[in-house]
Amino acid sequence: MADTKILLHERDMPRSWYNILADAPSPPQPPLHPGTGQPIGPDDLAPLFPLDLIMQEVSADPEIPIPEEVLDVLRLWRPTPLYRAHRLERALGTASRIYYKYEGVSPAGSHKPNTAVAQAYYNARAGRRRIATETGAGQWGSSMALACGFFGLECKVYMVRVSYDQKPYRRMMMETWGAAVVPSPSPDTNAGRAMLERDPDSPGSLGIAISEAVEDAATHDDTSYALGSVLNHVLLHQTVIGQEAHRQLDLAGESGVDVVIGCVGGGSNFAGLALPFIRDKIAGADIEVIACEPAACPTLTRGPFAYDFGDTAQLTPLVPMHTLGHDFIPPGIHAGGLRYHGAAPIVSQLLLDNLLRAEAYRQNDVFDAAVTFARSEGIVPAPETAHAIKGVVDAARRADEAGTEQVILFNLSGHGHFDMSAYDAFLHGRLEDHELPEAEIERALRAIEPLPKPASV
Amino acid sequence: MADTKILLHERDMPRSWYNILADAPSPPQPPLHPGTGQPIGPDDLAPLFPLDLIMQEVSADPEIPIPEEVLDVLRLWRPTPLYRAHRLERALGTASRIYYKYEGVSPAGSHKPNTAVAQAYYNARAGRRRIATETGAGQWGSSMALACGFFGLECKVYMVRVSYDQKPYRRMMMETWGAAVVPSPSPDTNAGRAMLERDPDSPGSLGIAISEAVEDAATHDDTSYALGSVLNHVLLHQTVIGQEAHRQLDLAGESGVDVVIGCVGGGSNFAGLALPFIRDKIAGADIEVIACEPAACPTLTRGPFAYDFGDTAQLTPLVPMHTLGHDFIPPGIHAGGLRYHGAAPIVSQLLLDNLLRAEAYRQNDVFDAAVTFARSEGIVPAPETAHAIKGVVDAARRADEAGTEQVILFNLSGHGHFDMSAYDAFLHGRLEDHELPEAEIERALRAIEPLPKPASV
Repeated sequence: MADTKILLHERDMPRSWYNILADAPSPPQPPLHPGTGQPIGPDDLAPLFPLDLIMQEVSADPEIPIPEEVLDVLRLWRPTPLYRAHRLERALGTASRIYYKYEGVSPAGSHKPNTAVAQAYYNARAGRRRIATETGAGQWGSSMALACGFFGLECKVYMVRVSYDQKPYRRMMMETWGAAVVPSPSPDTNAGRAMLERDPDSPGSLGIAISEAVEDAATHDDTSYALGSVLNHVLLHQTVIGQEAHRQLDLAGESGVDVVIGCVGGGSNFAGLALPFIRDKIAGADIEVIACEPAACPTLTRGPFAYDFGDTAQLTPLVPMHTLGHDFIPPGIHAGGLRYHGAAPIVSQLLLDNLLRAEAYRQNDVFDAAVTFARSEGIVPAPETAHAIKGVVDAARRADEAGTEQVILFNLSGHGHFDMSAYDAFLHGRLEDHELPEAEIERALRAIEPLPKPASV
Repeated sequence: MADTKILLHERDMPRSWYNILADAPSPPQPPLHPGTGQPIGPDDLAPLFPLDLIMQEVSADPEIPIPEEVLDVLRLWRPTPLYRAHRLERALGTASRIYYKYEGVSPAGSHKPNTAVAQAYYNARAGRRRIATETGAGQWGSSMALACGFFGLECKVYMVRVSYDQKPYRRMMMETWGAAVVPSPSPDTNAGRAMLERDPDSPGSLGIAISEAVEDAATHDDTSYALGSVLNHVLLHQTVIGQEAHRQLDLAGESGVDVVIGCVGGGSNFAGLALPFIRDKIAGADIEVIACEPAACPTLTRGPFAYDFGDTAQLTPLVPMHTLGHDFIPPGIHAGGLRYHGAAPIVSQLLLDNLLRAEAYRQNDVFDAAVTFARSEGIVPAPETAHAIKGVVDAARRADEAGTEQVILFNLSGHGHFDMSAYDAFLHGRLEDHELPEAEIERALRAIEPLPKPASV
């Protein structure tokens, strides 16, 4: 029988990140300054990010070298294993061959440290002493806490208060790695104090937490802001995933891949796996690329392509992306990492260019797929990741119905050790499907002014 | 720089378990029937265990082949990586080289599935349809739930009620893998009903839960009992750990190892790593083997070698072991897996024979070592495992003080994702040291009648 795990030696880690902007058919549309409406330049971003990251954000180089210092941390868990899902294939009764890249082996349990480590490194090299960031359920905050520790940076995490109170384990993990964590809104910033004055019992939101972290960075010379998805440089850092998977599929004896699947919130784990394969697709390979999202937050399947704010409080630049509007508040699904109103500009543009397509699933269908996976492969996936698994189940069924044997690859972006209550709700019939009323989507969409389609499409 | 991770291919998994009883200098003393005082035979155990496991319990063969069906499941996560702890070495400023075998990569997060899978396989092959077992904090129960699923067995877990109520995530994990979990004492057994009649609000104990699981197995023809530590066959199944580590140290270019370290509750993760190296020691190699235990439950450092019951309710055979007495109730330290009054007969005998030694540590010192590890290597260790890390920190310091460079190997037996509240207590100064009053130890010891030392010692 073919191997279960295809491993790479750490000397075979990719030595550079892959920049899709060098190959994409449409040029990226620039972020705009919300005040002037003009494209923003490096100077506008300098208070928030170190120059190296700003230059990566706008680079057109196809390959950007990964610093040795970053590789030296990544090899604590990279290269990650590629699994052949023999047992899942048997459970589904499919003739297709299913592979998954397991990013949950990082100490923080997801793909997020791939970029957190790079961001911490560049900030340390630029002489910054502190990072301020926000976190919802805690995946990103814990990854940044871990990464800051490796480079001697202080880390301040503004954690959405409702998560801080209800999901204390992630907070404890961040503190174990040395970060300072406060519930947001906090009394530590003007934005937080203003919110607390209006509502001392505010449960907080990602929008408020972003405002606090951005203000912290903007008002401390030694401090940078860090974001865990959406931006070009974040997606860039995640391309180690797809580059490794590419090599591992070769080692598994596969001459190619038919379907590449990932879940999308901001888009970083999806892009990390998919971009190196979309390069092949641009060069002529016949690959189906599927982005999986919740029906409760159907950014790619329903949202128009428009300039919109990245945050609720309208502090960020205007970003070109598929969006449900910065005021859109998705229902409280368990896949907290997918509850984002927009999608990364790179992913949004590739969707416009028909280089990927999107599917949206209901929560109970997603957990049904996740339990099938846990009972066949053992690993309990994160609720976010479970959307990709639902995509795989559907893709395998389509292939079987068409009488074809396909090679299906997906990103198992994280484990669900801190999300077991979602499984509990599903197994005991208490999980809601949160179908979004059509009227609510239409109301959200009416507030958005779509961009004209670029000439190349 | 030397590699961080030393990986083995799954084709290099050990093909047999190593049985120390073939090489140990003292013959094992047999378990006794509590009624007759006579050595128990296979017939006494047949209602609880399948014959294959009973024969492994008493085998004198040095190598016992691992069935292909077991290997086929183990390779979902085995061979596990051996890490060179470069960053921990730098954090300690030691000249020694530290290696750790990381067993937390299993889906259940610890070494426990190594034996759970084997036990499930032999039970399925014997035609049993169900497994009944107990669990405290949930490590063992979740491993057995996982393993039963792979072999189509039903799994019933009696979970100590206080854990069932306070640590729901492990219960949810077991249910995700398909197990039925009840709080113990439960209304499902005579033992449970009797206890509930006396105290409807009983918090339960491992002793009661064992009684329930044993009764369940003894009263259902299709059901076996399963134990996660202490017994010979359980330690046997764990020897894949040490055999892999042996090969990986060779690959790392080490000509030998100076110190081998593990934490001991029942003794299975410690033995799994150490036994293949104790084989070398018996053959003349100069290796220090250190068993690390909590000062709050100092079984090996303070307990005499005696025949004692494995459980509080006196249902099990009398087992020859270092013990604090079956009535001993250790303080509520966070390392729940180390709160056992006895130690495995094999480990106990090897201690008598001076083939290993034991050290006991206070809880705050243990967590101090654990946080040093988490901040240098990234992985957050389980509280049990943290005892081994404290042992490593001390061993490295001793080597540096003596001016020697040693090769130190330890078992990182599990991650702490479900134990973060222990870190929280430590980081916020709320962790107790639970020093056991000398009078309490002496009172426990007075109740035990030590065995005469065997003639060979």
